[in-house]
Amino acid sequence: MGQNHVVRIQCVDKKGLIAQITGILFENNHNVLVMKEFVEQSTNTFFARLELSGQLNASHLELALKKILPAEAEVSIIPVRKKKIIILVTREHHCLSDLVVRFHFNELHAEIQAVIGNHADLRTFTEKMGIPFHHIPYPALNAKEYESSVLRTIEDYAPDYLVLAKYMRILSPSFVSRFKNRIINIHHSFLPAFKGANPYKRAFERGVKIIGATAHIVNNDLDEGPIIAQQTIGIDHEHELSDMIEAGHEIEKSVLAKALQHILEDRVFVSGNKTIVLD
Amino acid sequence: MGQNHVVRIQCVDKKGLIAQITGILFENNHNVLVMKEFVEQSTNTFFARLELSGQLNASHLELALKKILPAEAEVSIIPVRKKKIIILVTREHHCLSDLVVRFHFNELHAEIQAVIGNHADLRTFTEKMGIPFHHIPYPALNAKEYESSVLRTIEDYAPDYLVLAKYMRILSPSFVSRFKNRIINIHHSFLPAFKGANPYKRAFERGVKIIGATAHIVNNDLDEGPIIAQQTIGIDHEHELSDMIEAGHEIEKSVLAKALQHILEDRVFVSGNKTIVLD
Amino acid sequence: MGQNHVVRIQCVDKKGLIAQITGILFENNHNVLVMKEFVEQSTNTFFARLELSGQLNASHLELALKKILPAEAEVSIIPVRKKKIIILVTREHHCLSDLVVRFHFNELHAEIQAVIGNHADLRTFTEKMGIPFHHIPYPALNAKEYESSVLRTIEDYAPDYLVLAKYMRILSPSFVSRFKNRIINIHHSFLPAFKGANPYKRAFERGVKIIGATAHIVNNDLDEGPIIAQQTIGIDHEHELSDMIEAGHEIEKSVLAKALQHILEDRVFVSGNKTIVLD
Amino acid sequence: MGQNHVVRIQCVDKKGLIAQITGILFENNHNVLVMKEFVEQSTNTFFARLELSGQLNASHLELALKKILPAEAEVSIIPVRKKKIIILVTREHHCLSDLVVRFHFNELHAEIQAVIGNHADLRTFTEKMGIPFHHIPYPALNAKEYESSVLRTIEDYAPDYLVLAKYMRILSPSFVSRFKNRIINIHHSFLPAFKGANPYKRAFERGVKIIGATAHIVNNDLDEGPIIAQQTIGIDHEHELSDMIEAGHEIEKSVLAKALQHILEDRVFVSGNKTIVLD
Repeated sequence: MGQNHVVRIQCVDKKGLIAQITGILFENNHNVLVMKEFVEQSTNTFFARLELSGQLNASHLELALKKILPAEAEVSIIPVRKKKIIILVTREHHCLSDLVVRFHFNELHAEIQAVIGNHADLRTFTEKMGIPFHHIPYPALNAKEYESSVLRTIEDYAPDYLVLAKYMRILSPSFVSRFKNRIINIHHSFLPAFKGANPYKRAFERGVKIIGATAHIVNNDLDEGPIIAQQTIGIDHEHELSDMIEAGHEIEKSVLAKALQHILEDRVFVSGNKTIVLD
Repeated sequence: MGQNHVVRIQCVDKKGLIAQITGILFENNHNVLVMKEFVEQSTNTFFARLELSGQLNASHLELALKKILPAEAEVSIIPVRKKKIIILVTREHHCLSDLVVRFHFNELHAEIQAVIGNHADLRTFTEKMGIPFHHIPYPALNAKEYESSVLRTIEDYAPDYLVLAKYMRILSPSFVSRFKNRIINIHHSFLPAFKGANPYKRAFERGVKIIGATAHIVNNDLDEGPIIAQQTIGIDHEHELSDMIEAGHEIEKSVLAKALQHILEDRVFVSGNKTIVLD
Repeated sequence: MGQNHVVRIQCVDKKGLIAQITGILFENNHNVLVMKEFVEQSTNTFFARLELSGQLNASHLELALKKILPAEAEVSIIPVRKKKIIILVTREHHCLSDLVVRFHFNELHAEIQAVIGNHADLRTFTEKMGIPFHHIPYPALNAKEYESSVLRTIEDYAPDYLVLAKYMRILSPSFVSRFKNRIINIHHSFLPAFKGANPYKRAFERGVKIIGATAHIVNNDLDEGPIIAQQTIGIDHEHELSDMIEAGHEIEKSVLAKALQHILEDRVFVSGNKTIVLD
Repeated sequence: MGQNHVVRIQCVDKKGLIAQITGILFENNHNVLVMKEFVEQSTNTFFARLELSGQLNASHLELALKKILPAEAEVSIIPVRKKKIIILVTREHHCLSDLVVRFHFNELHAEIQAVIGNHADLRTFTEKMGIPFHHIPYPALNAKEYESSVLRTIEDYAPDYLVLAKYMRILSPSFVSRFKNRIINIHHSFLPAFKGANPYKRAFERGVKIIGATAHIVNNDLDEGPIIAQQTIGIDHEHELSDMIEAGHEIEKSVLAKALQHILEDRVFVSGNKTIVLD
């Protein structure tokens, strides 16, 4: 039978691309379950994601596609399987527990290999659910040693993605560059409003009537990476700061779960500082 | 230069359809601006909508497509131009005035040829905005004469679509059959809840916490036609019936405008009692 | 110091009620943290919920209030403490796990005393989280014995509320009458649409563009009890039935959690078949 | 019979305020249709809005209230009548036409006395609907003369409020100070994101997945005044800049209409840089 594959293509747009791509698939007798494509006008870039069923020789198909695609086209052919992820946390549980419960009940399209916390608050819950928890305290180490320790812990697992689930430390450029487009963060504001620290407090003081949450890919500009998904919720003058935080938690976990699902299903393309999500 | 065209295809699904369709377009040197396709699993039906720019021989292209498509495929090649519509109303203005203002400011992808009302309440506004208004009172005529009169009025205009913008009379099967899939209605409830008369009153009495509005294609089962778009809005115990109606008007006009835009851009396909909206 | 109390009043409306109620509280030197009141016009009923801080003689205050309130006024003075709840489940975990995680992290304003399942699927998770799980299989018993067994299990705990978290059995009138206005159910549709069995399947077949979930108080008309909260989410033709169910789960757990919070904070009043939620 | 009145109170909070306020109303035999109150913890300020029916001696009631309220309490007793407004516009019609249509059909709780445009684009529509239009071109005058001319035009009408309905000029501090808390603006972003010029362009370039609109009271910090209402709408990578603008127009007009209704019904209180909306 063989397993399903996702084919991802990102290249300069040119006339007839779809005809040529689907032509090759047809000639080779591949069964296309679903195809989504998009041309970004501002950069003249073509994006496509296809799901194929049945047996497939990946290197042969990649070669055939590259032959008809523009030079420097990025093509990847990915067998559909659960991705491996590591979750980094600090003290707040809501994003972690949401993902862990989905994992426990086999609804997360990923294996949570481990959780790393700079505090130990979430150890009990994580271990109860059968997932290794590594406590790497930040204040006990200097910043460089801390990050090396985190890195060593991660490397043993060789994860596909890192998920920052209300992880409150800033990662260094050298750390981030090791996981290019592979670190997903949840920021507790409707970016670009309230970048940086204490967004709820600043939203409360500003008197906004809606708050938001943003899941994005981490790059080296704080809270400036490509946005995958956002969500908002209405509030009013009756919301004390603590009520805003409570309301915000609901959308934080929801938007992170949604963004992560897009990532895990290989639907997210990065174009400059934007994402194209082919769902 | 030539104008743009929309190509719509609806047929039994089979392997390689996209390759063959786009292959023909590529061979004939057509420029595909955007393509959306969908396969409905439950009926094994393929739907596609393409926008082409540049000169085009429609009958030649149709022939070429039909040659490679399964038998009984429905293909239409439609020049992109403003559709002609007639709006039927009773007394409430909000859906009518929303469409008329969009038309006035050249934002409706249609020409409103005329408005027909079974009451005269909306004559002044309609005529102020430069649109003919035909008052055809229902109680003055018997049902059959009334409908004949409406029909004669419509036929002079030869519209593409009829829009029922809070039109409170039920059209007969023979009337509806003359405009198959060409009558769009707005129903003031979240169908299938509160089908039929007085939906707000019944929603109020039931104590729902959300109300809705539904834009659908009219067929001969009251409020049972294929749904194009729906919208909901939260309410609470402080909403008197009149507040619910007021809140509902906002979503009624919004959802009708959105559904109509889909229709006018040839994005809506009907499959059994469902719509496929390729936007 | 004394603890906070909630005062709830439901009675025929009359002029000056607020002046008289707040007058008594002022005379007795009570500190009103927050007061919400509402007059339902259609039934001429007054509802109020007040939170008081500081020491309080409940029977004395109740007497003083009843003296000035209309005959047959319902007054309750409730110390603010965690309510005790029992959750009934079948096989689906999402509503249960959401509540259990909130409980585990001390964010549910309730103690989950036990979970009762007519299937054993959720035993492992529930017990991992330190909560007793009672498996009472339905098919093994006749309906009457089954319900007696459930009832005996519940009675040992003397809970304040029963929560039906995707519990797929219908409770008998005699069972329901023992817990008047104390059973909360989540129904997986936007009631009154798709009452009864298989709402997602019917929604899929109808081709709706929005699905919903409804949390309500259980009475003896199936899916007809007073609605506490509802939530909706947009879908489209790309949603297979399984996608609709997946999307629906997100709003089911969200709306149940929200409704339950209102219940646990004594904010929900029942008037006929409607709720007044003073939040 | 007499007409209804709104009573607004804003003062330092103290124990027993509601008892004393409602006590006075009861003694004087006033009929309270609805009362909403709120205590802002961070400033220890009490806000209340009451609607009274029946005859009323405003100066007598104000005196009686001030006697029991803390010093420097702000009390206003406002007969319920349509407010007078002037709308300032530039070129975009959608916010203006929405308000004008509501006015035409007697659904706006205000009289639109006139429209002032720094361009003449909206003259035809405005005059068709029977409302005076004043074209005061900006480039033809220097900034000071321009504003004086606008001011003179306004003063003849003595409006209660000015509504900036996509009015693209910045008003000077001296102008704004003449209409303290009486100028309402719609800003086409989810403030505080994208303050200032070209918010849609910047949102497009940032790659956000949600856009917003904000109705606020104008003060002398650009786009920094107290927010009355906000609304958001989801977008995705398929939205070109022009699509974002089109989607944004729908929420701009909706949120301005909602905010203005709150203003016209005397529901909006200003506390520092926030609003309390007692609805």
